[in-house]
Amino acid sequence: MAQLYANAMQSSILGLYAMNGGEGPNSYAQNSSYQRGVVDVAKPIIEEEISLNLDIKQFSSTPRKPFRIADFGCSTGHNSFPAMQIITEAIEKKYQTEGLISKIPDFQVFFNDQVMNDFNTLFHSLPPKSNYYAAGVPGPFHGRLLPKASLDFAYSSCALNWLSEVPKAVVDFTSPAWNKGKVYYTGSKQDVFDAYSNHYAKDIGSFLEARAQELVSGGLMALLVPGVPTFENSGTSYTTPVEMDLIGSCLMDMANKGRLCEAKVDSFNFPLYFTIPQELKSIIERNQNFSIERMEILNNPGKRTLSSAQSRATYLRAVFEGLLINHFGSEIMDELFDRYTKKLAASSLFQEPDNDKSIIIFVLLKRKVE
Amino acid sequence: MAQLYANAMQSSILGLYAMNGGEGPNSYAQNSSYQRGVVDVAKPIIEEEISLNLDIKQFSSTPRKPFRIADFGCSTGHNSFPAMQIITEAIEKKYQTEGLISKIPDFQVFFNDQVMNDFNTLFHSLPPKSNYYAAGVPGPFHGRLLPKASLDFAYSSCALNWLSEVPKAVVDFTSPAWNKGKVYYTGSKQDVFDAYSNHYAKDIGSFLEARAQELVSGGLMALLVPGVPTFENSGTSYTTPVEMDLIGSCLMDMANKGRLCEAKVDSFNFPLYFTIPQELKSIIERNQNFSIERMEILNNPGKRTLSSAQSRATYLRAVFEGLLINHFGSEIMDELFDRYTKKLAASSLFQEPDNDKSIIIFVLLKRKVE
Repeated sequence: MAQLYANAMQSSILGLYAMNGGEGPNSYAQNSSYQRGVVDVAKPIIEEEISLNLDIKQFSSTPRKPFRIADFGCSTGHNSFPAMQIITEAIEKKYQTEGLISKIPDFQVFFNDQVMNDFNTLFHSLPPKSNYYAAGVPGPFHGRLLPKASLDFAYSSCALNWLSEVPKAVVDFTSPAWNKGKVYYTGSKQDVFDAYSNHYAKDIGSFLEARAQELVSGGLMALLVPGVPTFENSGTSYTTPVEMDLIGSCLMDMANKGRLCEAKVDSFNFPLYFTIPQELKSIIERNQNFSIERMEILNNPGKRTLSSAQSRATYLRAVFEGLLINHFGSEIMDELFDRYTKKLAASSLFQEPDNDKSIIIFVLLKRKVE
Repeated sequence: MAQLYANAMQSSILGLYAMNGGEGPNSYAQNSSYQRGVVDVAKPIIEEEISLNLDIKQFSSTPRKPFRIADFGCSTGHNSFPAMQIITEAIEKKYQTEGLISKIPDFQVFFNDQVMNDFNTLFHSLPPKSNYYAAGVPGPFHGRLLPKASLDFAYSSCALNWLSEVPKAVVDFTSPAWNKGKVYYTGSKQDVFDAYSNHYAKDIGSFLEARAQELVSGGLMALLVPGVPTFENSGTSYTTPVEMDLIGSCLMDMANKGRLCEAKVDSFNFPLYFTIPQELKSIIERNQNFSIERMEILNNPGKRTLSSAQSRATYLRAVFEGLLINHFGSEIMDELFDRYTKKLAASSLFQEPDNDKSIIIFVLLKRKVE
């Protein structure tokens, strides 16, 4: 408990958040099968793109240069490890196919996430046998994390939907974008949506700028970006943002029942954003450092892994609890997710997995030659 | 408590150990002023050797190559951060002196320690402003941790006295080296000492072999190795091994009083060894991959930082408690270190800091050109 408190304090000072650590029942490690589903669906695409697009000549020199890969937003690693295995094995296969087995480089993988991330669990969970040297890199991926031109392959899965912070205007009661009575942009005012959308463009721009510095010329970047097919909500389907809005309605129910102060809800907003493919494409093109080698929409590849209201609620709890505790305290968590589970279970909309229209946008980028 | 237990379990499975984590009163972070004293004394030597011995030409190419430094056995970083600052600033100064300010490379620092090390505390404690990109590397430094020829400068302070494991013979009751009734080689049979000494030579050999692979040709390695001036004990002075033997006598006192089982003491031995300069020199020369650029004895540079029996006991507790809990359980720790503090305080020998003849051996090695 003292440790929890110390962590919460530090988190509040650093302004950071992370997935639930450890290996317990509400941990991200035990509740990220959705993200694992994403990796599985992306596997053949990543393999094909490495085979087609990776220039291995520069690594076949003597003395051999190591091949460096980074996963930005790896959490405790449970979905990162299979992804890193897919990438390194695809590269090895390319060397084999081209008759260069003796030239296969040493691999070094950098596992990145926020400073608050549970790196101890990540390191304890590293596969006992792997074909790479592992390192952890703490810090926000919207900024520089690695030396200039030191990275050969960048990867990020289910992480670029996180903003660097809540857009300031949505918690500023003097602003037209003040998001009173809500915790997310879904179904809110246009000003609120714009504040989120602008912040997202700025954050992804910063991410691309940092990676452009870190990647070698010709280096590849595979991004799996959670998104939505359209910003409109039909009422007959739903997406992750709609589910997050539902957490907001549970919080407002609790405020109305006097279980927490309404001002506390007003001052909380989720620092996430779910883009549409055309918007993401525009942001990438604006950066100018990368060519888009492939862009593809994966239709909610993980949805079948979360069949019950309970498992869906626990999944969101593993992702958002740290953030919510930091603002509301840990006392209300059980009640909040209990209410949330009941709302999900009571709704015919949320009970049918095919109604979930969330998408993952796969993008393969190549660092242009400077 | 559940977390402690989980850690102990994992530690026992992995066969690993680490300094006390966190920031509490018995943490290594709060009780490593001795090791900090070592860094301070080594500072001018490291600065001088970088100025004299570092070949910066290879980093002055276009495009700039990053300069990679690793600290092997960094614990939670509190003495590593100042050391990394000393090294990076000395390198920057060398560029300035040679009129190459615009060529100063990006620095990347790899902080290494055992998988069980508290990397979360390390990452939270990173200096908010530093001139390097930080990464954590989990794993035993007796083996390979980094890609081939990927490291420019290796550093290790107060860590190479740790063996990879307890020599098997000293806990094998069928062996002539069985160390019955004792927990360390000090004052024990020659067979026990030989088992430790041979294991040390093998471990340092493995360390040097791994670093020889990782370092670039001409790369430097600065080692601060805890040692003793001679293996004989005069009775009028003491060294760290003598203090460790004293922990053993406290454990035997507790066994004699029925507080713990004597067989439990027989099956415990400290996995550490304190070398003498000539022995270390021989092991390095046998490896053949390094030239010794400088070797110097620092006479117990940190001893003045631990003035009372209490502070000395807490210092050893921060270092050894994880290891002791793993074998004896946490219940006896307070009593054990209480007894230990009393023995220290009752002895005129241990009360005079000048009687502590422990040394730190400074060695600067250069990786020979392959």
